[in-house]
Amino acid sequence: MVVTSHDVARLAGVSQPTVSRALRDSPKVSEETKRRVREAASALGYVPSETGRALSSGRTRRIGLLLTDLENQFYPHVIAPMHRELEALDYQLVLQTETDDTGRVAERLLANGLDGVLLATTTVDSVLPVRLRDRGVPFVYFNRTSESVEADSAEVDPGGGLRQLADRILGLGHRRVGAIFGPRNTSTAEQRETALRDALAVGGVSISAALSYRGPFDFATGHAGALHLLQREDRPGVVVCGNDVVAYGALNAARELDLRVPQDVSVVGFDDLPAARWPLLQLTTVAFDLDAMARRAASLLVDRIEDPAAPFRHERFPSRLVERGTLGAAP
Amino acid sequence: MVVTSHDVARLAGVSQPTVSRALRDSPKVSEETKRRVREAASALGYVPSETGRALSSGRTRRIGLLLTDLENQFYPHVIAPMHRELEALDYQLVLQTETDDTGRVAERLLANGLDGVLLATTTVDSVLPVRLRDRGVPFVYFNRTSESVEADSAEVDPGGGLRQLADRILGLGHRRVGAIFGPRNTSTAEQRETALRDALAVGGVSISAALSYRGPFDFATGHAGALHLLQREDRPGVVVCGNDVVAYGALNAARELDLRVPQDVSVVGFDDLPAARWPLLQLTTVAFDLDAMARRAASLLVDRIEDPAAPFRHERFPSRLVERGTLGAAP
Repeated sequence: MVVTSHDVARLAGVSQPTVSRALRDSPKVSEETKRRVREAASALGYVPSETGRALSSGRTRRIGLLLTDLENQFYPHVIAPMHRELEALDYQLVLQTETDDTGRVAERLLANGLDGVLLATTTVDSVLPVRLRDRGVPFVYFNRTSESVEADSAEVDPGGGLRQLADRILGLGHRRVGAIFGPRNTSTAEQRETALRDALAVGGVSISAALSYRGPFDFATGHAGALHLLQREDRPGVVVCGNDVVAYGALNAARELDLRVPQDVSVVGFDDLPAARWPLLQLTTVAFDLDAMARRAASLLVDRIEDPAAPFRHERFPSRLVERGTLGAAP
Repeated sequence: MVVTSHDVARLAGVSQPTVSRALRDSPKVSEETKRRVREAASALGYVPSETGRALSSGRTRRIGLLLTDLENQFYPHVIAPMHRELEALDYQLVLQTETDDTGRVAERLLANGLDGVLLATTTVDSVLPVRLRDRGVPFVYFNRTSESVEADSAEVDPGGGLRQLADRILGLGHRRVGAIFGPRNTSTAEQRETALRDALAVGGVSISAALSYRGPFDFATGHAGALHLLQREDRPGVVVCGNDVVAYGALNAARELDLRVPQDVSVVGFDDLPAARWPLLQLTTVAFDLDAMARRAASLLVDRIEDPAAPFRHERFPSRLVERGTLGAAP
């Protein structure tokens, strides 16, 4: 005889959906009920079938997070809060890495039977959002958006923090400002670059092409970019980095060149990751609530899965300057 | 009419399993065949059903990785290679975090329909391996083992690296050796502590209880441990840390106390994570092939799932000392 969740429900004196929820350890079920359901399941030798559950509901309760570089130090601080939020909502987080062929990524996501996808690395020119929309896979933009397809989004508003930063940079007498921007085909890099340039322009300062460097948001970009900028005759007095991980690379390049930070050169990041607070780094950076933003992206996606017809929501998290030790007076 | 994978197979002129593999983007299928299968699927409007696949095979092709602290800087360097290896083997990686109640973890893993589990945080006294064995869920020990239940394992042999380290510490004239060990209920901490003590004992040096500190393998442990040890009258000349993340905490504590590394105190790690190479850290550490070890754990688990009756395999990865800038002569 095959024992089903209905048998367990009967023995425990609860409804069948409650059995599923209790065995998934859902926070919606009381501890007392969970205990009763577990005892009933154990007495009957019931083994819950995830496959059966997916068949009956049409849902797998699995959500993909699409990333590129899993070893980038930014992602743990995104994965952890998304995982926590999804766990509380009874969903599992499945990591998916992006390959060059976005058409294939869409097929793989579909074949994997995901209820929805969190897009953390969208480029503005990606066709993936179009493919996902055409195939009816719910998704949310996290930290990056694309204008090709509208979807719920959780991103930073870099304006507040970067205006405070520009004020401070100008106040410290900097005129030769360098920057290591993110990739041009990401909304995040575009928005940060525009906000920084606009805010510096108020003080009559611009970032010349010669003092600009551009690359992926990673350590290698910061390292190579700073080695390039800081060995110029007209070395910038401050290097504004696309994010904290880029700034880690820049700080290490400055050390390699025996330049003191901030006496010889100032370095600024964006994100305020935990290591920015390290006494060995003391990174001045632009902060926002990354943890809340990651959790919000997860809950936006669950809301979308449960109510596909709801109006789109675009959440922008405010930013602010956090001063530590790497921004000083112009040399 | 419902289009099935058999219809796609017929149109593409391949077998049904090849259709599944092609649509999962398996490396075992040629690019040409994948193209033909995709075209056939597209022509017929076929949407692969992961649920149907699980029903027909009894497998979900999903593997859980059980972790505690997702934000620990050690894990990205474990998750990334495991993910790559599993992707190549057509499996998905699902993150699972451990709670205090291991009984519930086992139930949750079962309810989630995983084909197997990678255990990365096992304590020697955990009942989880027993529960998994009793319920027939295949698992592999990664980096930590437990003697309660035998299972395939991939771990470090710390002996080689720690003997080299002890030789070097003794050769540099250190006699007051301090240590920040990992938790006593983990095989990793036990093995490293025993290997270090044995190797130092050859030179007549022991680590006193007063110069020992113990805690989870994280930044906070290294920071608190070093603040504690380095403010003693009989400050140790070298602090050997349970792993690199602990050593990051210790280096930052030394900076806070205005102690120069290695002139005033030496600090050593274990793992050789990428940041150990940072010019700002230059951490002397014990290295092993963490990437290969993580991939191996993943492939051991897949082998176990596919052949439950095979003999157990225990793989121990050799270690060696990597000298950088944080180990110097006794002060």
